[in-house]
Amino acid sequence: MNTYDIIMKKRDGNALDKEEITYIVDGYTNGSIPDYQMAAFLMAVYFQGMNHEETTMLTMAMADSGDRLDLSAINGIKVDKHSTGGVGDKTSLIVGPIIASLGVPVAKMSGRGLGHTGGTIDKLEGIPGFCTSISEEDFIRQVNETGLSIVGQTANLAPADKKIYALRDVTATVDNVSLIAASIMSKKLAAGADAIVLDVKVGSGAFMKTLDDARLLAKTMVAIGTLAGKDTTAVITDMNEPLGNAVGNILEVQEAVECLQGKGEKRLMEVSKVLSAHMLVAAKKAEDYEEAMKLVDDVIASGKAFEKMKEFVAAQHGDASYLDNMEQFEQAAFTKVVTGKDIFMADSDTINWESGYLTACNNQEIGMSSLVLGGGRETKDSEIDLTVGIRLQKHLGDRIDESDEVAILYGNDENKLESAYQRFVNAYTLSKDNTFNNQIVYEVITKANL
Amino acid sequence: MNTYDIIMKKRDGNALDKEEITYIVDGYTNGSIPDYQMAAFLMAVYFQGMNHEETTMLTMAMADSGDRLDLSAINGIKVDKHSTGGVGDKTSLIVGPIIASLGVPVAKMSGRGLGHTGGTIDKLEGIPGFCTSISEEDFIRQVNETGLSIVGQTANLAPADKKIYALRDVTATVDNVSLIAASIMSKKLAAGADAIVLDVKVGSGAFMKTLDDARLLAKTMVAIGTLAGKDTTAVITDMNEPLGNAVGNILEVQEAVECLQGKGEKRLMEVSKVLSAHMLVAAKKAEDYEEAMKLVDDVIASGKAFEKMKEFVAAQHGDASYLDNMEQFEQAAFTKVVTGKDIFMADSDTINWESGYLTACNNQEIGMSSLVLGGGRETKDSEIDLTVGIRLQKHLGDRIDESDEVAILYGNDENKLESAYQRFVNAYTLSKDNTFNNQIVYEVITKANL
Repeated sequence: MNTYDIIMKKRDGNALDKEEITYIVDGYTNGSIPDYQMAAFLMAVYFQGMNHEETTMLTMAMADSGDRLDLSAINGIKVDKHSTGGVGDKTSLIVGPIIASLGVPVAKMSGRGLGHTGGTIDKLEGIPGFCTSISEEDFIRQVNETGLSIVGQTANLAPADKKIYALRDVTATVDNVSLIAASIMSKKLAAGADAIVLDVKVGSGAFMKTLDDARLLAKTMVAIGTLAGKDTTAVITDMNEPLGNAVGNILEVQEAVECLQGKGEKRLMEVSKVLSAHMLVAAKKAEDYEEAMKLVDDVIASGKAFEKMKEFVAAQHGDASYLDNMEQFEQAAFTKVVTGKDIFMADSDTINWESGYLTACNNQEIGMSSLVLGGGRETKDSEIDLTVGIRLQKHLGDRIDESDEVAILYGNDENKLESAYQRFVNAYTLSKDNTFNNQIVYEVITKANL
Repeated sequence: MNTYDIIMKKRDGNALDKEEITYIVDGYTNGSIPDYQMAAFLMAVYFQGMNHEETTMLTMAMADSGDRLDLSAINGIKVDKHSTGGVGDKTSLIVGPIIASLGVPVAKMSGRGLGHTGGTIDKLEGIPGFCTSISEEDFIRQVNETGLSIVGQTANLAPADKKIYALRDVTATVDNVSLIAASIMSKKLAAGADAIVLDVKVGSGAFMKTLDDARLLAKTMVAIGTLAGKDTTAVITDMNEPLGNAVGNILEVQEAVECLQGKGEKRLMEVSKVLSAHMLVAAKKAEDYEEAMKLVDDVIASGKAFEKMKEFVAAQHGDASYLDNMEQFEQAAFTKVVTGKDIFMADSDTINWESGYLTACNNQEIGMSSLVLGGGRETKDSEIDLTVGIRLQKHLGDRIDESDEVAILYGNDENKLESAYQRFVNAYTLSKDNTFNNQIVYEVITKANL
């Protein structure tokens, strides 16, 4: 077997067998296959695709390239949750406490990642004292005691994915459903949970721009999870505007707290509750989805979910009093209010009335505004500014008058604030009529409807 | 401008502009673009192709990546000839003396290359004393004095092509018409001739397996040459069996001499004469093809072409007496005769009569027999054995009886001889009826019929 023949076989549209896929993944991980052959292979996969069987074999080979986390010392059915990523997505901070307060153990090892904001562990580090570096032993003890722990990745999970993703990122081979699915699922399988709930985002702020693409990715991942013996559910949710009001690290922690207190923005609340309910069903804490949803509503209303959040923060040495008194959180030095007039001015080429509806936005550009402010990482080594970001006061579908406040931008550098402002005001489209479809959950994919 | 965006643009099927193509070629040549990005780019080109304009810009960027040979000190119209390569192709050794004897200057700088046999300069080194390392100054003086010089490449011609070809060779991105055309034409343009005649091979022993593919490559190269301001002609010729009788280095020199003496094998003679005639027209030594063909016949019949060959060999310090007395040439230690019976035995699964016609062969495999004997280079560093090879005594379309000698294999190692024999006898197909179409020149492409 040699790499050249495998590249050519895929290039010519043939399906690879397990031996060939393992040869490529192992060879690339251990360095015997050079970057340039892997790059050619990935581009061939980009054009020719992989069938479900190949994609599953690829996922398995990647999951087996490093450690597999052993969560057997944790009692109960461990359910992991993963989002394909979007702007303002802080559901992990909300879902974790909800299901932990209902007795589902949550053991989450999380990377920092690149993007508009930091990852979940970056956000949590906005709480003074919060510690994300914990030994594997303490991590497991905390889950057994508190029901919930979220820590930085210490184990060597799916190193093949790390290396392959870095190469895809510089060779324009990211956008392929098999490669995306294998990347996500290899990490999830290595992370050791018994069941997996996936939040597949669709829209202008997501990887998947159309419902068809999102459905294909969801079905591919559910198929892989099922073939790997894990109960897997995918929920397809909207990412045509930021999820909730906040984009930014500390701003998102604050919004998560509001949600756990039952005061969250409507669409964010709905996504968080739907994901929680599916996780409860997967963990066999509810007979069906309706029962699960009732349990979720109850723990929010009773304050139990919020209490669990504070208990979890305290267990990881964070100052939980910040969650009760959120004005204590550090704030950015400057703010800039975006009004309806600012949006009209930016859009004045195409409209000539003075009030209208926010009907669409380039959500990617809103994410970029947050990145420009310093809220996310452009490269692996970028420093994140946890205080900056955006707080939306209007959403798609809202009618806007000139004087309405649409959003507040938070920054520590006036030049960056100005540049984020320019991107932000240009990201929106105004229309005379409200044409926005504000559906938030589109579909649920399980093995039953693959 | 950045490499990622250029890869993505090509991946998505868009045409690149001159700036982008130059950026990629220059960046890869100077090392600022890494192998892995170039590999992804090449695979994207493999799938999406390039239009004539892009291919021409790619060729120009590659031709400009190093030196361009300045042949202006040579009087007359310089016409270069290039073959896309095949088994037993020794036409350069025949065409050069023919057109030089008619006053067309031939200044050929030639690489050694990989393949079934060596390149033209390897073959010439089979003549004792023949020197292929000559300074550029002496090279030009010899062309002005003798009319013909063939030397090893000293100038840094199209280094981009060298680097890109090496990468294509290990990433399964060789078989793309734009990349093949740009590779050939960049070297031809850098080599400084005023006009170019291309011999595009088609058949089982060539890159291009079908006439459609060969025509596409021919048209692409003629379009590039024309856009670059060079009179360019492509002749599409057959490569379904070796060209002529000899495959091997010294064996091919001997066969070239036979052709110049007017005793050459029919198909080889025809290809050599057709190419020579087109070169004479391009050099304006004849009004039209018919007149040119008459001139070619004359210089062969009069012995002037053969005299030119000897003059050229002597000018490069070779012992020209070998050409008059060819039994002086060193010969391989062992020979093995392949008979009709050997071919029948190898093909006995499919036939049950005892005589038939040679109607097809896997010409690639015949080339491999020569390589196995040691006549060619498998890697850049392989040593060539100039004495080994194959001499065919039968051709496709011939009727074969059991006792007929089909070929003689020449080797210096009995194990290699046995292994070459196995490949050789299995390469042929016998049929009861003669179905072989023995057309040798298929088409001529010029700018007039692009």
